[in-house]
Amino acid sequence: MLKNFEHFVSETQVTPEIAEDLIDRAEAFKQGAKPEVATPYYAANLFFENSTRTHTSFEMAERKLGMTVIPFDPVHSSVTKGESLEDTLRALAAIGIQVAVIRHSQDNYYQPLIEANVPLHIVNAGDGAGQHPSQMMLDLMTIREEFGHFKGLHVGIVGDLVHSRVARSDMAMLTQLGATVSFSGPKSWYTKDFQQYGDYVPLDDLIPQVDVLMLLRVQLERLTAAEKTEFSAESYHERFGINQARYDRMKPGAIIMHPAPVNRGVELASDLVLADRSRIFKQMHNGVFMRMAMLELVCGK
Amino acid sequence: MLKNFEHFVSETQVTPEIAEDLIDRAEAFKQGAKPEVATPYYAANLFFENSTRTHTSFEMAERKLGMTVIPFDPVHSSVTKGESLEDTLRALAAIGIQVAVIRHSQDNYYQPLIEANVPLHIVNAGDGAGQHPSQMMLDLMTIREEFGHFKGLHVGIVGDLVHSRVARSDMAMLTQLGATVSFSGPKSWYTKDFQQYGDYVPLDDLIPQVDVLMLLRVQLERLTAAEKTEFSAESYHERFGINQARYDRMKPGAIIMHPAPVNRGVELASDLVLADRSRIFKQMHNGVFMRMAMLELVCGK
Amino acid sequence: MLKNFEHFVSETQVTPEIAEDLIDRAEAFKQGAKPEVATPYYAANLFFENSTRTHTSFEMAERKLGMTVIPFDPVHSSVTKGESLEDTLRALAAIGIQVAVIRHSQDNYYQPLIEANVPLHIVNAGDGAGQHPSQMMLDLMTIREEFGHFKGLHVGIVGDLVHSRVARSDMAMLTQLGATVSFSGPKSWYTKDFQQYGDYVPLDDLIPQVDVLMLLRVQLERLTAAEKTEFSAESYHERFGINQARYDRMKPGAIIMHPAPVNRGVELASDLVLADRSRIFKQMHNGVFMRMAMLELVCGK
Repeated sequence: MLKNFEHFVSETQVTPEIAEDLIDRAEAFKQGAKPEVATPYYAANLFFENSTRTHTSFEMAERKLGMTVIPFDPVHSSVTKGESLEDTLRALAAIGIQVAVIRHSQDNYYQPLIEANVPLHIVNAGDGAGQHPSQMMLDLMTIREEFGHFKGLHVGIVGDLVHSRVARSDMAMLTQLGATVSFSGPKSWYTKDFQQYGDYVPLDDLIPQVDVLMLLRVQLERLTAAEKTEFSAESYHERFGINQARYDRMKPGAIIMHPAPVNRGVELASDLVLADRSRIFKQMHNGVFMRMAMLELVCGK
Repeated sequence: MLKNFEHFVSETQVTPEIAEDLIDRAEAFKQGAKPEVATPYYAANLFFENSTRTHTSFEMAERKLGMTVIPFDPVHSSVTKGESLEDTLRALAAIGIQVAVIRHSQDNYYQPLIEANVPLHIVNAGDGAGQHPSQMMLDLMTIREEFGHFKGLHVGIVGDLVHSRVARSDMAMLTQLGATVSFSGPKSWYTKDFQQYGDYVPLDDLIPQVDVLMLLRVQLERLTAAEKTEFSAESYHERFGINQARYDRMKPGAIIMHPAPVNRGVELASDLVLADRSRIFKQMHNGVFMRMAMLELVCGK
Repeated sequence: MLKNFEHFVSETQVTPEIAEDLIDRAEAFKQGAKPEVATPYYAANLFFENSTRTHTSFEMAERKLGMTVIPFDPVHSSVTKGESLEDTLRALAAIGIQVAVIRHSQDNYYQPLIEANVPLHIVNAGDGAGQHPSQMMLDLMTIREEFGHFKGLHVGIVGDLVHSRVARSDMAMLTQLGATVSFSGPKSWYTKDFQQYGDYVPLDDLIPQVDVLMLLRVQLERLTAAEKTEFSAESYHERFGINQARYDRMKPGAIIMHPAPVNRGVELASDLVLADRSRIFKQMHNGVFMRMAMLELVCGK
């Protein structure tokens, strides 16, 4: 059973049981279930970093929950006058905002806010290189929707492990839920953090084994100079990207996931973005219903 | 009769019959007719170029149709991470956006999107120096509202023909609808493209002949160095602008139109922006109802 | 009794009687009274200067009144093409906007608009160093809520009098309503304008006398070079800021107000922002109901 969360900021709040319950609720929303959120209910989205998908997805989820969304533009806010995030949130709460969905470049930005007892709910839409719980949950939903369960599944996570919010959170939860995780891509990115969760397997060995191939975005803008020399788009694609030949060697029923935006021709051949095995746009579609479930958990009656 | 459009991107989609039907429907909305669009219906406006009038007018039209508008800010979107417009639209569609109203600086930006079968409706709010169908349609609506018909009307189009989206689309449709078109303003801007649609007539000869004087904005920012030297605001106004003396020589019942924003004192004397013959703000007012009709044509039941 | 205002732009429109009536109405909204504004009613907020609190508060007030808010972003508007504010407002009115809430850096920006008879209502959300009537009204509401009346109250206004919209408007109305006003802070900022409204009193003498200590934001970005040398954050706080020792010497029942954002550790010790006497967030909370009352006065049936 879901217990009410005051804030939803970290994957560490999600037990396997809570994950299953959230997926159940998101699936119910997808089938048309009515939300249990009081109306009017006032939300604001504070995106201090760019994002199309996550921002728009939360906006949609809020409206589907019947919430009233009050626009907030960080660029034109008093944050530019040096106001702290805490004082900004206290102001929004005083004005009547009940839930703030926040994306911020600083790791754990939410910790001091929660310690200061800011008088509104916080939902974390991504912090620095830290947590991104709604992305983890929509990934889990998409996997369970496909296979009906997690136990015994083999998930291969391929690519920029070091800079990815997604890899860390997904691998931890997937192993708790009974799946096996393996890693591939540039071996230098398979650091100690990942070794407790799964083995490194060369890509061409991994491909025929996995049920889920989870590709990570190469964040070209975050690579070191040496990495940029080593991994041009072409060389990355040749060594670690999914092309038609690799695609054809996947197991029957196996799927491809990617948190998007995809670098077409790098992680995945452009022609395969919409291929049969691709669940990339389904992930985004599921994201709206999952965010409804998460927001309802925090804001519901 | 109106047949349903999957996208509304080009004036070439508009036959004289469709134009008349759209004007009928826009006039009905102006009289309070109920829209036939399912609710909820999710729209997003993607304006990659600045615009007050067109953007705000579509926002209003969407709300008057009962649509839910999900905000989208290109500046803070993943487009800045290099995502293609196609992938952005696929993401928005996955999230639940059903119609995207787009203004973009690139001519024919919509062509590859339609060929790629993006799974949402596109309404073109202006592309590069190309099409601007909603502006054409609101111009036609304003003319028909005034005179009741197009046949036999004489329309003079004056000014920056070369850089104007409006001139090209209006002249083609007006001649199809039975009106006569003439051109005036700097003769160097009367290029071959325009000669098949109508004659060049010196401004002071043209003025007493026309029913509609359609002034075009001088896009000072797009002029060549030579043009800037030749056409200071003052010299343009003296040679090709409408001042009180020229205004007084217009035919009884003749009107002035302008797509706005007006350069006051250049195309038109400042005092004449609100003069009796000016339909400039009526054009904007009609634009909302015309955009309702166009969106309904694309998105309606 | 409230008479209908066509525009609400200046504190000079507010008589003591109107102030009391507006506070009555705002308190009624706070208790859940239903607004008397037609629906749909179309509003736009034109913020040419940054503001979190005021902008968000008006957005909230409009929605609580049942208005439809059409987004307007000055940065991406035709204002960047050199369009005048008058023509922008005429365009918005033609499109159907019925009330424009405007913040602008230019003093009295609204005067030429009203003289030009722009066909929509204007509510001033702050002009240059001029008027900020909604801030004045929410201050008055917060004081009356606390004490039940104004007569005989002693209000101390402390700080950057010269650059403050708040000081000038509040002092004038408070004296009309029967309160006594005194000033403190850097004596060089106590210029001739203020002398007719009240005396300058050294801060430590003032503190035990006042019922309301109204702190003004030090606008560090507006200080002269000499002032910046004289008033570092630390030295300002020591000489003119409220620390615990000064806080403890306040009268029983006395309160602290501040228009926010607070420079924590400058005007007020960080620990005291949420202290018992602080009404800073209550001011913001009241602001929403006061703006509802003001908008209803302008736009109501």
